Formats: sequence, structure tokens, C-alpha cells
Amino acid sequence: MSVPKSPILTDLYQLTMMQGYRRAGLHRREVCFDYFFRQHPFGGGYTVFAGLSEALQFLAGLRFADDDISYLSTLGMFDNDFLSYLSTMRFHGSVHAMPEGSIIFPHEPVVRIEGPLDEAQMIETALLNILNFQTLIATKAARIVEEAGHDNVLEFGARRAQGIDGALTASRAAYIGGCYATSNVEAGKVYGVPVRGTHAHSWVMAFDTELEAFRTFAELYPNNATFLVDTYDTLKSGVPNAVIVGKEMAVRGQKLVGIRLDSGDFAYLSVEARKMLDAAGLPQVKIVCSGDLDEYIIHDLKAQGAAIDIYGVGTRLASAHGDPSLTGVYKISAMRDDAGTWNMKHKITEGMKKATLPGVKQVWRLYDAANTMMGDVIELDGVNVRPNAPVTAYHPVVDYNKKVYTDVARTEPLLSEVFKDGALTAAQPSINAVRERVRNEMKQLHPTIKRLMNPHIYKVSLGEKLHAQTRLVRGGSAGAEE
Amino acid sequence: MSVPKSPILTDLYQLTMMQGYRRAGLHRREVCFDYFFRQHPFGGGYTVFAGLSEALQFLAGLRFADDDISYLSTLGMFDNDFLSYLSTMRFHGSVHAMPEGSIIFPHEPVVRIEGPLDEAQMIETALLNILNFQTLIATKAARIVEEAGHDNVLEFGARRAQGIDGALTASRAAYIGGCYATSNVEAGKVYGVPVRGTHAHSWVMAFDTELEAFRTFAELYPNNATFLVDTYDTLKSGVPNAVIVGKEMAVRGQKLVGIRLDSGDFAYLSVEARKMLDAAGLPQVKIVCSGDLDEYIIHDLKAQGAAIDIYGVGTRLASAHGDPSLTGVYKISAMRDDAGTWNMKHKITEGMKKATLPGVKQVWRLYDAANTMMGDVIELDGVNVRPNAPVTAYHPVVDYNKKVYTDVARTEPLLSEVFKDGALTAAQPSINAVRERVRNEMKQLHPTIKRLMNPHIYKVSLGEKLHAQTRLVRGGSAGAEE
Repeated sequence: MSVPKSPILTDLYQLTMMQGYRRAGLHRREVCFDYFFRQHPFGGGYTVFAGLSEALQFLAGLRFADDDISYLSTLGMFDNDFLSYLSTMRFHGSVHAMPEGSIIFPHEPVVRIEGPLDEAQMIETALLNILNFQTLIATKAARIVEEAGHDNVLEFGARRAQGIDGALTASRAAYIGGCYATSNVEAGKVYGVPVRGTHAHSWVMAFDTELEAFRTFAELYPNNATFLVDTYDTLKSGVPNAVIVGKEMAVRGQKLVGIRLDSGDFAYLSVEARKMLDAAGLPQVKIVCSGDLDEYIIHDLKAQGAAIDIYGVGTRLASAHGDPSLTGVYKISAMRDDAGTWNMKHKITEGMKKATLPGVKQVWRLYDAANTMMGDVIELDGVNVRPNAPVTAYHPVVDYNKKVYTDVARTEPLLSEVFKDGALTAAQPSINAVRERVRNEMKQLHPTIKRLMNPHIYKVSLGEKLHAQTRLVRGGSAGAEE
Repeated sequence: MSVPKSPILTDLYQLTMMQGYRRAGLHRREVCFDYFFRQHPFGGGYTVFAGLSEALQFLAGLRFADDDISYLSTLGMFDNDFLSYLSTMRFHGSVHAMPEGSIIFPHEPVVRIEGPLDEAQMIETALLNILNFQTLIATKAARIVEEAGHDNVLEFGARRAQGIDGALTASRAAYIGGCYATSNVEAGKVYGVPVRGTHAHSWVMAFDTELEAFRTFAELYPNNATFLVDTYDTLKSGVPNAVIVGKEMAVRGQKLVGIRLDSGDFAYLSVEARKMLDAAGLPQVKIVCSGDLDEYIIHDLKAQGAAIDIYGVGTRLASAHGDPSLTGVYKISAMRDDAGTWNMKHKITEGMKKATLPGVKQVWRLYDAANTMMGDVIELDGVNVRPNAPVTAYHPVVDYNKKVYTDVARTEPLLSEVFKDGALTAAQPSINAVRERVRNEMKQLHPTIKRLMNPHIYKVSLGEKLHAQTRLVRGGSAGAEE
């Protein structure tokens, strides 16, 4: 699995602060941190949560190696007591999280970490790295699959992904988001993602003629032949040669699986190629397209009536074109005082945009009678949000702005305990179960929220208790700076 | 080091083709592949080459593990002979490459691989992944450093980088590109990149008051204190508290190192903070800014006269905002025939944009008397491009378009052998030597080429022999489709 080998994947200041908390006697103070984000990526209306199982594995296996400690000792910043503590430290905290594969929204805590201040602080960097990246790619994949149709997208971004592990975890997240397979063999081995592939231009160029290249491939892989037809000229050479070999295969009782277009005008070429294949009695041959595709281009190709069956999406999926980072953050929201009471923490920066929500919180999802998601309400942990009664919900920033939900058929708390006192409380769901969750939750989302441009905004609000608490901590100034 | 553990980081079709080449008896045919790209990232005028040493380590250590073979056998696509061959295969080819840290340009072969067809084919995916990503990040870093000034940029993108390894190799490449340090402790350990850091908002929030947080930090790290001043209110609280503690430190004979602004209008806040620090007799305190910075924002802040000494750049550097993937490709350019003669390979797709240059090639760089780079000329390997005589250079696509360089003071072949018959020919330069090369070559580049917007285009041309060869292979149609 692609989990950091050691907590040394961290920002230096985490360790500096950790040593500082110990010296200041604050390190065992119990705190609550929230993982959340402030804006959907890609200008979209929803985000798909991924990476949880790997984040939890990281926490469960967290320990510094001897050579980590040796390296840290060379920096001249850490005393021996602290280094000796690090060499045996483990993560003893607890984690509440939404299930991996959930549809998530800005401001709401997606993962809630409770634990000693020093431990909870130190895990920030690795946790953010894992959750931000996989969530970003799962979201991009869901957007692409939403346009292309279920089971129509093959991911093959390994060569342009951001690093070796970027490729591997991108393939995992893309599958969770709805791609049906990957070209990345390592992702098949490590995660069990189905693997698929065709052949490259170099295959065609390694033979004297395109026809010979196709014939040889068909002989070698009679059950699994998709020909790349654009090496010389798609309509004058590639498709006619594919037709010749496709007919030869038919005579032998074999079926050509597909042809792949990798350059040129896909709207034009796919329609012409479809006509040629159908006229030759090869209607089963699927047309695969690849080459700088993304959700917008696929949307446009469909609108033009392109005859494409399968979309191969690489670069723009694996490196999240349009928005290559998710701005997920990890912020302290509460600290227990000496009496054991949670003390609310709230940061007020320049403007309210970067402000955080104080307290230990839960997120409730409201559904209507048709099981469509109506909105999410963030509330203090332990306060229930019940259906079958009006639910008053406050704007997360503009505190005089509120709405009342009626006709709520069902409410569901989204955060549940997945890790307690340093250990997983249960096995995490399989990658296929996570993928299925995404598919199901996408169906519960109103279509206007899934629109590519100017999507309808799904409302995330504060419940009454959290709203009152937030006003108190903000000193009644909430909204004034927006 | 962050090198793929196994060649199983590959696209499935590489293995399918590899088995196919063996069955077709083509696998031992010697071929030449070029690694090159077609367009500078970020709309820029130059690209910084990085990742070579890791790519070579990958080639040198390439071997399938037993569990890789077991996994492949489950796919039902590979026969036992092939799997048995894979289990012992090594890379036996040779590599010519430009030195890591070189400034590189579109169309020119940056790395040239010669070897048996099956081996040369299989390494494509991992090679592209390593070279594309590190080159992309080194280029982004160079662009940012070019605006911010040398030794003024600290990279801290780990939490938003694309994956665990994305963080690690991004830190390496950012340092090569000119950042002076990283926050990523793992990059310090693995690559020897200097590590730096301050503290987070949570440090301030863990104490009852901001003043107490700063005081405690100063007591713990008297030689290394930079205070984050925007937790509550930058100018009304953060800077005044930093001034109080800075003066207290001065009384003890200590020096406050810096303050960090992390939100708000940096142009305004930095100037006001500078005035307050200077008025308090703390002129040595540096002002660090961080928060969604990139080359454009830094350019603009400088133009506004912002009083910023150090730029902390994270997200937009580590995930290459603006262009999150380099379109580097790996294309076959020649194959030896049975008589041992190189047979030129040239792909003609729809349009000439994706066409490749045939043959085994060398790249020559032309310098004027002031040692400024004049242009690059790609020529067939073995043909010298000499100074002190006019050099005729042809447009890579439009073949009737040529220019003649006069006053060429010096020419330099850029590709040299770094790997022969499966082994490194010499140790690769240290990361600091690579970083120094970038710095030196950037100085040899005309300033107009380094401009952020609409940069002057550095010319890459074909030499006479390659031009003639290309015309021959293209059948005289070059340029017709452009």
C-alpha cells in the first residue's frame, strides 16, 4: 500500500512545535482537530472523499525509524530527550470520519481527530497529503465519469502523473471515482484495480506496414485486440487496415474488440470510423478515444454526437487539470482545559474566509422522502438533528442568514468512530465497496448540483447549538468582515 | 531515494507489446527512443531538466519481484515463458542524456535510449513519470525564484502535493530549480535538501494569549524564532506582540529572526509591518510571506513595492499550478535493420504537431562571444556543428524556413553517454551541483526568454543533415499540414 513509511514525511515546524509543546508542558493536553476544505475543486458542486483507509493505516503504523532519528539529530534543533521520545512514540488518538467514498462539502469536518496535542499536531502534513490528493482525483474522476457515462472511462495517467506514488494513488482514487480500469499495472497489483491496455504507436512503427502490425497483434491477442489507428492516417490507412484484419478475424471466428483514435478531430473521425466499421459488418468494434480528454471535452463530444464508446483519460485526470490541489486544511477546534471541559478554539484572521468553526462537531445529512440529499447541518457533537420536525439551519458565515428545512424524511450523522486510542476499530471497506458508495451517493445528489458550470450550491449550515457557540466565540462579529 | 521499486510501475500495454515483440521475433532488434517535449509548461520560454539521476537509478536497478510475477500470472494474458523471462530481465541498453539541470527546449531529444526493442519499450512509463514530474517542478521553481530573487524562496508544499512521493520529489526538484530550502523533513533526510520552518496557527491557539505563545517560542528557540502574526489581527495584535517579544529578546542579547504573514493584503501589510519593526529598532527582522503565492503574484508584489524578504511557496509550486503536467513523450526514432544499419522511423499523424524527428540525434548549443545561448541545432549523431563558420539551421516543421547563424563563438554537444550496456558510466552529479548548473545556465539565457508573459522564443532548429533526412522520410510534405 502507498502509505508513508515513516512520520518523517512532515513539515519541520510540526516537530519544532511538538518539542515546544513538551517543553511548555502542553503536549498531553487533549485537543480536537478538524480536516475540512473551503471550496470545491474545479468550480464544481460536490467533492468525493477518498484516501481514508490509507490515512488510517498511516496512523496505525506510525513510528520513526532509527535512521529518521539519526537524521533529525544532525539538525541541531532537537534535544536528546525529545529524540528519544520520538523513537518510541505512537499515535494514541481517536478518529471520527465520514465513510470513504462519501460526497462531501465545504466547511464540514470530514475527519475529526482527538488526541494529545503533540501527536495530533505532528500527523497534519501526511494526513493532508494523503486525503487532499486522493479526494482531488476521486472528484475529478467522478466529474469525468458523470459526463462519459458509467463504465466508459479507462484511466491511463501514469506517465504524466505527479510522481511515482502520484501515479499509484491516482489510479486508486480514479477507480473509486468511477473509472472502470487503469493502465497502471502496479495499481492492479497493489489495489486490485482492473487493468487494461491496447498498444502504442511504436508497435505499428516496429513493423514494415501498419497492416502487418495489426495482423500480428490480432494473432497474438485474438480475444483482446484494440488497434491504434492514427499512426499514419486514421481514415485512409488506420481504419481500413483495422477493417481488413477485423474481417480476417471474423473468418476465423474471432472478434476485433476495438479501435483507438489518439489524435485529430474526434467528433468527425469517430463518426466516419463508425460508418466504415458498420459498413464492413463490424458493428461490435468499439471506438476508444484518447488524447487530452477531460470532462468538458467529453461533454462537448457527446453534444456533437461523436460515436465514442470508451474514453481513455490520462494526463488531465491523473494530475487534476483545472485545479491541481485540494485546499483541505487541518485546524484545531477545541482543547480540554485542566478541568476536562472542552474549550472552544476559533481563529479569526484577516477576513472571515479563513475562519474556522469552534468545538467538537458532528455533521448531519438531511434527506427528503425521495432519498435526495437536501442539505447538511453541522452541529455540536452530542446534539441530535431530528427529522419530522422543522430544522433551523444558519449560514456558516453570515449569522443572520438562516433557513428552515421542513419535510425532512431522514437525517443521518456522517461522522463515526473509525479509530480509537491508537487502533482501527474495524476493517475499512474494500475499494469496490468504496466505489459503490460513490456511485450510490452520486445518485442521491440533485442533477443541478452535478452540472459542470455554475452548479447549484448544496447548502451546508450550522445547527442551533453550534451557531450559538460560534457567535459566542466570534464575539458577535460574525459576518461583519465578509 | 524515490525510485520505483519495480518496473511494474508501467502501463499494461508495455508488457503486452513486449510479449508480442518476443513472439514476433522482434524483441532483440536494436532501437533508438527519444525523450522530448513539445511545449514549454506555464506558457514560458524555457524548461529546466530534472529527474535524470533517479531515472538512471531506476534503469540500473530494474528487476521484477517475485510477487510482481505472481500478480501478472493472475491476469491470464502472459504465458509462462514470458513470465519466466521477466523474472530475470535487466535493462541492457545505453543512455545519452543532457546533464540534469540543463535548460531544455521543445523538440530536442533530452534523453536518448538505445537498446533491445522490448527493454526500451517497457521502461517508457516509469521514465516519463520520473522525468516529466521533476522537470515540471524544477521549471516552476526556477520561474518563481527568477521573480523572487535567489535564495529568497522556501518550498513548503508537502501537504498539498500530489501524493507522498509527489511531495518528496517535488521538494528535490524545487531545490534544484533554486529554492533555498524545504519544510519537508523527509526531503532533508533523503536528498540532503536544507530544511526550515516556523510555527503554525495552532501554536498560537494552544496558549491563552498570542503574546504568551510568542514568548514561549522565543524562549525555546532563541536563535530560530519567526512568529506567525496573523492568527487574530496582523497589525493590531500580531506585529505589536512580535515587537514586544523582539525587544525582550534584544535585551537578552538575542535576535528575532522574522515574522510571517499568512493572509490578508501582503503589499499593504508588509509595508506597514516593516515600518513598525524599523520604528521599534528591529530592522534585522525579516518579513516572510506565505499563502497561495506563485511567480505572477510575487512579480506583482515586487512591482507594488511590498517589503517582503522571503517567500514561502507551497501549493502552487508543489502541484505546478497553471500547468500540472509536462507533456514529455518517448518516441521511437530509429531501428537497426538486419544489416545493422539504422532505419529512420517517423510518425505522421493527423497534422504535423505530433510528428517526430527521425534518426539517432545529437543536440548542439550555440553561444555568442558573451557566452549567451544563441540557439540549439538538432543534428544527426556524428555530424559536428562547428563555430566560426555560418551555421544553417532549418525550422523543425516548416522546411522552407531557415536561418543562418553567424558569429557563433562556441558550440557544445549536449547529449553525452551516461549509461552503457546496462550500467551507469559515472556517478551522477550531486544535487547541489545540479542546482548550480541551473543557476549558471539561467544566466546564459537572454532575459527576454525568461519573461513571464509572451517570452521571446529561443530557436531550436534542424541541422543540414537531419533536415535532409527528415524531408526524405516525410516524403517532402513537411509543413503542408501545418
